[in-house]
Amino acid sequence: MFDQKIYTERRKKLKQKLGNGLILLLGNVDSPMNYPANTFHFRQDSTFLYFFGLGFQRLAGVIDVESGDEIIFGDDVDIEDIIWMGPQVSLQEKAAKVGITQTAPYSQLFDAINQAIRQGRKIHFLPPYRAENKLLLQELLGIHAQKQKEYASLELIKAVIALRSVKEACEIEEIKKACATGYQMHVTAMKMAQPGAWEQTIAGTIEGISLANGSVPSFPIILSQNGETLHNHDHSNYLKKGKLLLVDAGAETSLRYASDFTRTTPVGGTFTQKQREIYEIVLAANNRAAELTRPGVTYLSVHLEAARVITAGLKALGLMKGDVDEAVRNGAHALFFPHGLGHMMGLDVHDMEDLGQIYVGYDDETRPVDQFGTAYLRLGKKLEPGFVITNEPGIYFIPALIDKWKHEKINTDFIDFGRLESYSDFGGIRLEDDLLVTAAGSELLGQRVPITPEEVEATVKG
Amino acid sequence: MFDQKIYTERRKKLKQKLGNGLILLLGNVDSPMNYPANTFHFRQDSTFLYFFGLGFQRLAGVIDVESGDEIIFGDDVDIEDIIWMGPQVSLQEKAAKVGITQTAPYSQLFDAINQAIRQGRKIHFLPPYRAENKLLLQELLGIHAQKQKEYASLELIKAVIALRSVKEACEIEEIKKACATGYQMHVTAMKMAQPGAWEQTIAGTIEGISLANGSVPSFPIILSQNGETLHNHDHSNYLKKGKLLLVDAGAETSLRYASDFTRTTPVGGTFTQKQREIYEIVLAANNRAAELTRPGVTYLSVHLEAARVITAGLKALGLMKGDVDEAVRNGAHALFFPHGLGHMMGLDVHDMEDLGQIYVGYDDETRPVDQFGTAYLRLGKKLEPGFVITNEPGIYFIPALIDKWKHEKINTDFIDFGRLESYSDFGGIRLEDDLLVTAAGSELLGQRVPITPEEVEATVKG
Repeated sequence: MFDQKIYTERRKKLKQKLGNGLILLLGNVDSPMNYPANTFHFRQDSTFLYFFGLGFQRLAGVIDVESGDEIIFGDDVDIEDIIWMGPQVSLQEKAAKVGITQTAPYSQLFDAINQAIRQGRKIHFLPPYRAENKLLLQELLGIHAQKQKEYASLELIKAVIALRSVKEACEIEEIKKACATGYQMHVTAMKMAQPGAWEQTIAGTIEGISLANGSVPSFPIILSQNGETLHNHDHSNYLKKGKLLLVDAGAETSLRYASDFTRTTPVGGTFTQKQREIYEIVLAANNRAAELTRPGVTYLSVHLEAARVITAGLKALGLMKGDVDEAVRNGAHALFFPHGLGHMMGLDVHDMEDLGQIYVGYDDETRPVDQFGTAYLRLGKKLEPGFVITNEPGIYFIPALIDKWKHEKINTDFIDFGRLESYSDFGGIRLEDDLLVTAAGSELLGQRVPITPEEVEATVKG
Repeated sequence: MFDQKIYTERRKKLKQKLGNGLILLLGNVDSPMNYPANTFHFRQDSTFLYFFGLGFQRLAGVIDVESGDEIIFGDDVDIEDIIWMGPQVSLQEKAAKVGITQTAPYSQLFDAINQAIRQGRKIHFLPPYRAENKLLLQELLGIHAQKQKEYASLELIKAVIALRSVKEACEIEEIKKACATGYQMHVTAMKMAQPGAWEQTIAGTIEGISLANGSVPSFPIILSQNGETLHNHDHSNYLKKGKLLLVDAGAETSLRYASDFTRTTPVGGTFTQKQREIYEIVLAANNRAAELTRPGVTYLSVHLEAARVITAGLKALGLMKGDVDEAVRNGAHALFFPHGLGHMMGLDVHDMEDLGQIYVGYDDETRPVDQFGTAYLRLGKKLEPGFVITNEPGIYFIPALIDKWKHEKINTDFIDFGRLESYSDFGGIRLEDDLLVTAAGSELLGQRVPITPEEVEATVKG
């Protein structure tokens, strides 16, 4: 349960990890669309939520590591606000629910920070990603927006990552709720994958499902019959028989925990022989990765094993050739699988990406790999119980990339460019589940969205 | 038709109005939700769209009023972008479609502006509302974010308002498309206004309708059985029989033109006697305002006439008393109708609000009124053919406001606070249509959403 105790405990652990200084955690403010008062759906900062649990705009939290003081800065409403926005619970009452007894008007944040600066105290802050908070930090700390990332506290970054990486029971329950909405979104999209349907109608309908459930999509929906484009947000096509519809989408609950699934469906509901062959390889890679996911193994090693399954499968079809291990060592698989196997997931769909993927996904023991394809792997380090991760292998036929490799003679020992020609309009297939790393291995989060070719065909046909 | 000619013509008129200097129009960039790469639905700046028609992020347009040169600054994609985002038409080709022949990499914007600064030329820019553009203007012009509004070009603001206020035929056609989606959203909400329904389910469903149509809501949906809160974005209640559901929502087309309607529906489909009495007054005010809307009259005068209809109606029910004209002169109506009758609408739902409501809605002849209620009127000035405006009177029973007035003895000559007591949980009613000011009078835009009590009841009951 997300009660007072959980937030108090998290802040206590954070103070223990830091040792000294003042921790400044900024909440987000409303983001304008086309003029100041017309704003996007409000999204609170995830780290602020993790430690303070308050989903309202224009708040800041300051934790004095030495004295132990914890203060929330924010403003209460006046009669004008009540007319336009309705009566509101006071900040004092809201703060009490997350175990904070001290609150102060927002303007006093400047005094508090100024005083700490005059006293020469260390102020720990995180790298800002919202321009509004960059402007605020300029005023508060006198650090130019472009320099703030550099001056952000690495100690704080590492402490936050250490805490947020291992999910508590209440967080896992909340992620399962996000998965339940994600399930509904994907099954609806499958049923709508009929010839003549407009991609935008499907994307809008499943976004509407998440909204009607009281959540929002956890990231802009990727939905396209041109699934070879990895992050395709162009939904302008009308579905054609013979194409594959790739949908990568998830929900974010009202408490802001995410799900993230990908499924690939034959338009009209029947796989062609060629589609099914590639689909089975991706499915085998997904299943193999889930089997291997357990504490103590690096996700880099799981990623590379998925790459080997893909390479072996494509070799069996004559699209790749040579020794499988050698092909993967040379990064030949990345022509077809040019991204990473997965990432952490939690309060952010790419969990804590704002804090720096290098700190979230790697450590002193496991360093990022600089090879095309594997370089995009967001999580490489050793897995621990409580990590929530995605498992999302894929095979794509990207004309521009195939042309480039063919022209520049890259990995010609492992790829049969001649045979590839008949796949130029194939598109792409990705299959993504969400996993919890457990003591014994891993657990699939939520009900598995239909994934075998038979299940998918049956779902489309209804 | 939104063709090359229309954009070229608009820029030509803008140059004529300005006379000298360099016009700098910034497009918007993607706004992050919870980390840099996870962004909201992209929304281009409306003025940038009006003059350049390009709906992509990270563009800037510079118009040299003296030489006549027009340049779009922006970057083309590389192979990595193609893998993730798909193949893209070049900036050169995109620009050609809106009549621009000169394009340059985004980084050259800095050189162009620096050069103009060195030459001591006047640089016209608009007040920024996105923090990203405030940071950019700090770098480009060396003006502190908090000072930029003050240094924005009033000449440019006035020229843009003069052009954008009078809608062209193609714009009106596009607004009608937004109205068609808005109609669908409202009729769906009416049908869903049943006891036990969750407000969020209805709000999410109608947002989903706009998305599935290839549009987005033109502003955050206001939907509540507590309609007395004017901008209520809290959708957490379950509808109760005996309450009224107020829905204020509209769509924005892919070209970014808005609609904006409000309807108020009895939960379950049958008005009580008390609800119907108040509803009929609001409807009479709406109809009377539409009748009066024509070129040459000020919208302030139409607003005040709507206030008189409301006052007379409430007097007939015994809730107000005394002379109607005197009551309105004293602002007594504003206890029940504490907002303005309407605003301009176009590429923004509150059209051009970022440029300053004082310039959009008022002029030397018609000045804003400083009285509670009428002070919120966004459009007061004389109407002209081609203006698109909203007509949205309302009556609300706001407990906090009633208590305040009663306690402070405000307008006690015109209000029967005793009789008001039985209305404390009534909620609020608002009825909003969109109007085009024509040469002869006004024209309702789009099919009128069911509005008579009989139409509304029939729609809910299906």
